[in-house]
Amino acid sequence: MQQGAIHKILIANRGEIAIRIVRACKDLHIANVAIYTKPDAECLHVKVADEAYCVGDEPLKGYLDPAKIIETAKQCGADAIHPGYGFLSENYDFAKAVEDAGLILIGPKSDIILKMGNKNIARSLMKENGIPVVPGTEPLNKESMDTIKTLARRIGYPVILKSSGGGGGRGIREVWSEDELEENFESCKREAKAFFNNDEVFMEKLIEKPRHIEFQILGDNYGNIIHLCERDCSIQRRHQKVIEIAPCPTISEDLRKRMGVAAVAAAKAVGYTNAGTIEFLLDDYNNFYFMEMNTRIQVEHGITEEVTGVDLIGRQIRIASGEILDIEQSEVKARGVAIEARITAENAWKDFAPSPGTITGYFPALGPGVRVDTHIYQDYEIPPFYDSMLAKLMVKDSSYDLAVSKLERALDEFKIEGVTTTLPFLHAISKRRHFRKGFFDTSYLEERLEDILENTADEASEVVAAIAAAKLRGE
Amino acid sequence: MQQGAIHKILIANRGEIAIRIVRACKDLHIANVAIYTKPDAECLHVKVADEAYCVGDEPLKGYLDPAKIIETAKQCGADAIHPGYGFLSENYDFAKAVEDAGLILIGPKSDIILKMGNKNIARSLMKENGIPVVPGTEPLNKESMDTIKTLARRIGYPVILKSSGGGGGRGIREVWSEDELEENFESCKREAKAFFNNDEVFMEKLIEKPRHIEFQILGDNYGNIIHLCERDCSIQRRHQKVIEIAPCPTISEDLRKRMGVAAVAAAKAVGYTNAGTIEFLLDDYNNFYFMEMNTRIQVEHGITEEVTGVDLIGRQIRIASGEILDIEQSEVKARGVAIEARITAENAWKDFAPSPGTITGYFPALGPGVRVDTHIYQDYEIPPFYDSMLAKLMVKDSSYDLAVSKLERALDEFKIEGVTTTLPFLHAISKRRHFRKGFFDTSYLEERLEDILENTADEASEVVAAIAAAKLRGE
Repeated sequence: MQQGAIHKILIANRGEIAIRIVRACKDLHIANVAIYTKPDAECLHVKVADEAYCVGDEPLKGYLDPAKIIETAKQCGADAIHPGYGFLSENYDFAKAVEDAGLILIGPKSDIILKMGNKNIARSLMKENGIPVVPGTEPLNKESMDTIKTLARRIGYPVILKSSGGGGGRGIREVWSEDELEENFESCKREAKAFFNNDEVFMEKLIEKPRHIEFQILGDNYGNIIHLCERDCSIQRRHQKVIEIAPCPTISEDLRKRMGVAAVAAAKAVGYTNAGTIEFLLDDYNNFYFMEMNTRIQVEHGITEEVTGVDLIGRQIRIASGEILDIEQSEVKARGVAIEARITAENAWKDFAPSPGTITGYFPALGPGVRVDTHIYQDYEIPPFYDSMLAKLMVKDSSYDLAVSKLERALDEFKIEGVTTTLPFLHAISKRRHFRKGFFDTSYLEERLEDILENTADEASEVVAAIAAAKLRGE
Repeated sequence: MQQGAIHKILIANRGEIAIRIVRACKDLHIANVAIYTKPDAECLHVKVADEAYCVGDEPLKGYLDPAKIIETAKQCGADAIHPGYGFLSENYDFAKAVEDAGLILIGPKSDIILKMGNKNIARSLMKENGIPVVPGTEPLNKESMDTIKTLARRIGYPVILKSSGGGGGRGIREVWSEDELEENFESCKREAKAFFNNDEVFMEKLIEKPRHIEFQILGDNYGNIIHLCERDCSIQRRHQKVIEIAPCPTISEDLRKRMGVAAVAAAKAVGYTNAGTIEFLLDDYNNFYFMEMNTRIQVEHGITEEVTGVDLIGRQIRIASGEILDIEQSEVKARGVAIEARITAENAWKDFAPSPGTITGYFPALGPGVRVDTHIYQDYEIPPFYDSMLAKLMVKDSSYDLAVSKLERALDEFKIEGVTTTLPFLHAISKRRHFRKGFFDTSYLEERLEDILENTADEASEVVAAIAAAKLRGE
């Protein structure tokens, strides 16, 4: 690590990712500062950081307040800010304000965030650079509905309407036939305007039942860019990732190579620096299409760390401090297979309703090939204001087969009492035949949800019965 | 895994290693059976195994009773027994009885245990096969004291007297000059007789301030033998390992290669099968000498798993079930550096007296590069009858430097309340300059013990003061 570049990092986030960043700082002997809002004072990230400052009484506002965060950083003498994921991590105004304040944002430069944050600009840039994108249109600002219908026919149904500024599953409409087009177009525009203050909408071919394959990118400030292999994030529910796998258990070495080359070319096209992710859709015929770039660290970065042996948060910090990336693409090797399951405080049988409360019993899975990133602890009261993710359980083994077995075992070992969690739901997925074979796409979970929940209900009621029996016995 | 060879494994051990074996069984979908004695019924290994049987009312006897263990295995339908480490794991009579009962012992054949268990036979075998051994004598059964004195002079003082059947630091005498020889020889013989019922004693050159370097071996039933790199176990207190590192942070690639070749040759000399360890002493001039072979899995096997990516317990089971070892020596690569610290329930300031009691607070270190193997949990009452090890904390990072930083951080994160542990002691070691540089040998810890304890006392009293202050504030 280049000495002297970054001495103190303010972490503009909370929960497990804030703790992850604290740990990286400590490993590199860099001072670290947590922020928190009043209702979040008991969160573990506040306790493990070297320093912690309250940034407001409201649950969320302080985490989303660029001025307050930059002021706090200046006051405590931090020279850099790590935004984590979510919150302000892909916010151009924040990134620009951090730069203007003379601080280092641990991430790409603000203009890259701006460019890649606009789906349409990103898409054009990729096209110009020969990266495959899904067949589709430019923004449909002034076109008549007749023209739009012609464009849709040319692409071929089903098509998808997308907001240029969209994200998180908002501002998206699937259109399966011409008679659905006009209505969906108008409602998509309205939603885009309401959520992103930008009613620009464009149209793409809908790729049916694709796999979601994303490549982890690292670039330094001197033009060196590599990828760190891919993650398969096809196991999703309502566009939210549930289980992620690195590397993808089914793609061929040749396809992996071609996608990796495209991912690095995509990052180079925008002059990318720091950690980022190129997301692709992969269809049934092994055609892959650029979907979007995430200009931040991702929730699921840990499984890439597990298989490549590269500390991504540590590398983010070192790159931001001006260090040269000393890993050649040829040196990157995925060893084994890692799987992440996101354990949330949700009630799967009640449409995944959040289930806040107090953790009355806590025993994380441990042992070989098991990694747990979490902010919970015995007696922690989960506030109702934040993301419902409680822990990321990661397992690693030498093959996909063994890693799935380990996932099943570790989910069984993991105990969280006091709140309803998705542990039994995830456990049920880990035992499914198709999942164990690696046969799935982004529709997998939705299509089997009822069936899985039925099985899960059995399992959960067994657990409930066992607990009740133990209480009767006075255990 | 060859189907059908092993269906159910009885684990003839307790605590963390029993849990480790349960986890390996579950990952391989093999049924697993725990045994326990009455005072040990609340130990976690009993709770995580598929089945568990009580093997006696006394704390220890059941774990050391071959007949009872084999009977239990037969009754529950186990076809194999895993002995773990300690207890009966290197006991020839047990291994033979298991074989005679038609069960598979997960380890080498009993005749190998017999040969390598006798230090003198092992030593002769190594000499015959060109493996360097420490200069020394044959067993001194009938030699006169004058002859013994002549032999000692020829070797050159200091010398060491060793019992052929010895182990665990018993039956060993350092002799620094001729006038100490006779008395030590007689007392060594008496101790050897008392502890091992075998008064055979031999003499070796005492290697001063050596490093303890051991190679992990894996061999299948068809003559394929490889090593999985080395561990540096020089950080010891009274011949007990305290901190282990894989690979050794200071030896050259050339020396590593030569020692590895010797280790494999040593294992081949005895036709070794399953997992084992060749222990070497390495002197200041990079001369290495065979010390002994451990014919079982070792406490510190996990750090080898972390850097090589090979699941050693899983491999033990697969080899015992008749699988061919499908790893070539050239494929074995240590990636990064892993360090293990053994956390014990001992009071370092009272000569490491055992400190049993109830765990009133428990928070294991978690996150990237951290592995914890333990049998403790919140509210667990540590029985006073067993080994005082509570947990093995393992960390891994890309370099020794970073791994040591991670060790320091993880030891700081790890919280065990209710009993006195060696956490502050280990933490103090992790911060020492020479340790951080990799400059140490087997005398390192003993020579600095007082100094480390003084620093630790400061740190511990700070902790105590902080807890007291928190209680006063009503936290």
